[in-house]
Amino acid sequence: MALSTANSLSPSLSSKLKSKPSDCSVRFRSTNWIALRPSPFSSPSSTELRRSTVSSSSANRVISMIRASAAPVIDQSVSEANSRAPTIVEVDLGDRSYPIYIGSGLLDQPDLLQRHIHGKRVLVVTNETVGPLYLGRVTDALTRGNPNVSVESVILPDGEKYKDMDTLMKVFDKAIESRLDRRCTFVALGGGVIGDMCGFAAAAFLRGVNFIQIPTTVMAQVDSSVGGKTGINHPLGKNLIGAFYQPQCVLIDTDTLNTLPDRELASGLAEVVKYGLIRDAEFFEWQEKNMPKLMARDPSALAYAIKRSCENKAEVVSLDEKESGLRATLNLGHTFGHAIETGVGYGRWLHGEAVAAGMVMAVDMSYRLGWIDDSIVRRVHDILKEAKLPTAPPEIMTVEMFKSVMAVDKKVADGLLRLILLKGPLGNCVFTGDYDRNALDDTLRAFCKS
Amino acid sequence: MALSTANSLSPSLSSKLKSKPSDCSVRFRSTNWIALRPSPFSSPSSTELRRSTVSSSSANRVISMIRASAAPVIDQSVSEANSRAPTIVEVDLGDRSYPIYIGSGLLDQPDLLQRHIHGKRVLVVTNETVGPLYLGRVTDALTRGNPNVSVESVILPDGEKYKDMDTLMKVFDKAIESRLDRRCTFVALGGGVIGDMCGFAAAAFLRGVNFIQIPTTVMAQVDSSVGGKTGINHPLGKNLIGAFYQPQCVLIDTDTLNTLPDRELASGLAEVVKYGLIRDAEFFEWQEKNMPKLMARDPSALAYAIKRSCENKAEVVSLDEKESGLRATLNLGHTFGHAIETGVGYGRWLHGEAVAAGMVMAVDMSYRLGWIDDSIVRRVHDILKEAKLPTAPPEIMTVEMFKSVMAVDKKVADGLLRLILLKGPLGNCVFTGDYDRNALDDTLRAFCKS
Ligand SMILES: NC(=O)c1ccc[n+]([C@@H]2O[C@H](COP(=O)([O-])OP(=O)(O)OC[C@H]3O[C@@H](n4cnc5c(N)ncnc54)[C@H](O)[C@@H]3O)[C@@H](O)[C@H]2O)c1
Ligand SMILES: NC(=O)c1ccc[n+]([C@@H]2O[C@H](COP(=O)([O-])OP(=O)(O)OC[C@H]3O[C@@H](n4cnc5c(N)ncnc54)[C@H](O)[C@@H]3O)[C@@H](O)[C@H]2O)c1
Ligand SMILES: [Zn+2]
Ligand SMILES: [Zn+2]
Repeated sequence: MALSTANSLSPSLSSKLKSKPSDCSVRFRSTNWIALRPSPFSSPSSTELRRSTVSSSSANRVISMIRASAAPVIDQSVSEANSRAPTIVEVDLGDRSYPIYIGSGLLDQPDLLQRHIHGKRVLVVTNETVGPLYLGRVTDALTRGNPNVSVESVILPDGEKYKDMDTLMKVFDKAIESRLDRRCTFVALGGGVIGDMCGFAAAAFLRGVNFIQIPTTVMAQVDSSVGGKTGINHPLGKNLIGAFYQPQCVLIDTDTLNTLPDRELASGLAEVVKYGLIRDAEFFEWQEKNMPKLMARDPSALAYAIKRSCENKAEVVSLDEKESGLRATLNLGHTFGHAIETGVGYGRWLHGEAVAAGMVMAVDMSYRLGWIDDSIVRRVHDILKEAKLPTAPPEIMTVEMFKSVMAVDKKVADGLLRLILLKGPLGNCVFTGDYDRNALDDTLRAFCKS
Repeated sequence: MALSTANSLSPSLSSKLKSKPSDCSVRFRSTNWIALRPSPFSSPSSTELRRSTVSSSSANRVISMIRASAAPVIDQSVSEANSRAPTIVEVDLGDRSYPIYIGSGLLDQPDLLQRHIHGKRVLVVTNETVGPLYLGRVTDALTRGNPNVSVESVILPDGEKYKDMDTLMKVFDKAIESRLDRRCTFVALGGGVIGDMCGFAAAAFLRGVNFIQIPTTVMAQVDSSVGGKTGINHPLGKNLIGAFYQPQCVLIDTDTLNTLPDRELASGLAEVVKYGLIRDAEFFEWQEKNMPKLMARDPSALAYAIKRSCENKAEVVSLDEKESGLRATLNLGHTFGHAIETGVGYGRWLHGEAVAAGMVMAVDMSYRLGWIDDSIVRRVHDILKEAKLPTAPPEIMTVEMFKSVMAVDKKVADGLLRLILLKGPLGNCVFTGDYDRNALDDTLRAFCKS
């Protein structure tokens, strides 16, 4: 039979075999430099979700390699082109594990992308804003020194309102017209909207093809590109249709943030603040000191915030890929936030802006329940102000608007709305449906005129 | 934290916990009566796909329990209502394993369905033909003695041409309007079209909810409901968008076949013939003797054919869930068949009719390659004639039509079309791209006028 041995292997296994033994991906995998393992403090079955294993004394549990010298690790041809080696954070999901590469100039390091390409055909999914800025460089990185690879692209309209089934169909149309087969690779080049759509398209095309994330917003770099949640919106709610589907790798070139509008930068920082609040008090304290640097796009501050955010997200996802419990804590502020996004119409408030206001509401409710002290309320307020993020929902939101959208939230189980709330010292949260309904009502009334 | 322990478990684990220890599902699982294990002869990495482990001497590898007496196994209330216990074939996929129940009168055994329902909300997806016939009984089976469960339904238009994104959206619309949450269960009630669509909807709704298959055609009972392939068509090709997604159980009530049109019955038998040809010569010989009984809907002949087909499919799927190699052999005749279905327009030829003609073409090509002797060609022809199935493509098909559709087939890898062809004695096949292109051309020319 002609079926080669490699064809019989799982895609992730064959990708490992395809990587040359001398490249740094394999060294990285085989030496297990980064291991994200369950800790007794963060098990989803424990009754309370404790503070992060990343912070303070246990910081060494999550190790990120920052390579000092490229020479022994990176392929010669690459080290000539660019001597900056990436920081790597590994997402540990058994045979679906994958690396996140973080650094400046990574789009000019073709080997990083090429080692994760399966087959000879690539479809880059991007939009009208990001395509003109970076599609040429990505195409070059995919094909340089590799004439066998052919690259197609599909340029979607830009905006959350196009994160829908009609726009998704354009990706399938392009893939099918281009006669892509199972061994192709989809590449998401853009923010969270493109990443979520391209990921879902990759999950569903021919029942699943490989894909790679190249996130180009802070939001996508610190959150949406990591962890495998993909999907699209329905007119009645956000992200209601989708799949859990992991990429082959995530490539974060921090230089792409140079073209990002200020408002988008701030929106992404809302998720960075979130990691501090739910599980990493030390990171929150770092942010309190460094927010001005982040707002001024200081490259090393941004790189650190992205790395630490990815580590937090990677650890949570490793422990609870399918969101049985722990992973839900990543949605601090999101239930209120989604209601805001739906209420004002998708795309008017940015996701992170809505999450910022939502976090303030969740913190307010936690305080009303007596679960946190008022210093946390104040610090959350202050850090979001510093990041020029909203600290209250827009005036048009009513209590009824919140309630009707929250009723269809994915975290409703058998009719009970569970929320992520802070409890205890900074860096601790709970995911629970066991709270006084009056506190929720009081919070909604406090933030809504009617 | 209020999050209950059960919520932190994986869905399949919590389903096991929810089954009462005294019910036969748990007994079944814990005693491991049916084990489908890899055999050295059918490993997908071997160079040739050998004859079935099901046939002749190794028949005992796949064991189906036919329960002689219901009393000790089936819950008392059920055994009163119906004394016929189901045949059970287990699909062995680790923590995603599930049972196939086969028997007469199973729709009147509420416990079979109820033990696999997660949460309190059920959405039955059916169509305008099957709904009026069976929806009432299924709703009754879901709710009898179980007033906590509420059942919604969505009735789709009937036909392969509605296996599309627009119709799929109606399922999401209904689920979202009904405010179903993650703990709901989708139930597919109908033939392969409904099963494929409902399964994909379940895979994508909220990134995955539980689902149950109640197949009501021979095609769905012997093939499409088993193995977790779900999906919809694209205007340019069949089943191009979908997911691998396994049900909680498959419930086959053979009585539902009493309302099935003759042509649909025959269409399903094409897949039954397929199992014999690719891996189960003994089953093929049984069919040669029993085709008249199957055509006359003899209940016990049908039940045997369904059981043996499910065993074959379950074993192949257990060995190769994601179609790395072995599973592709289930597509004997399908590459030619899909070209026919696309060429004549979806829904004019039934799937099994197209597969029958496609199998004749694959067998013809295998013979031209010198891989099988002419007695097999004749026997395939004869058995399909006996089942009143086509043995050649329709006259409108041209060589070009075949070639253009086959070029976008999912089994194309890096541009090379791989086919399932028979090789050796009856019951043996190969999945290969290594064949003389002239044989393919000769076959196409032999079956097309232009
Ligand atoms: N999958 C997940 O786990 C997850 C997590 C968080 C958010 N999300 C989703 O992500 C989306 C929000 O992501 P987002 O904030 O990146 O929005 P986005 O993708 O809409 O990008 C924001 C804007 O920035 C533009 N842009 C992107 N990169 C740029 C660059 N380098 N230079 C200039 N402009 C650039 C985009 O074209 C867009 O106009 C939402 O749909 C949200 O649901 C998903
Ligand atoms: N997922 C898989 O692995 C797989 C395998 C094989 C086929 N398929 C798919 O299955 C589909 C074909 O399935 P099918 O042949 O069942 O077609 P179908 O679902 O269209 O059903 C055939 C017809 O019979 C009617 N019907 C169904 N049950 C009936 C009953 N009990 N009494 C009276 N009428 C009844 C239906 O309404 C329909 O009109 C195709 O879309 C094919 O791609 C999928
Ligand atoms: Zn978010
Ligand atoms: Zn078929």
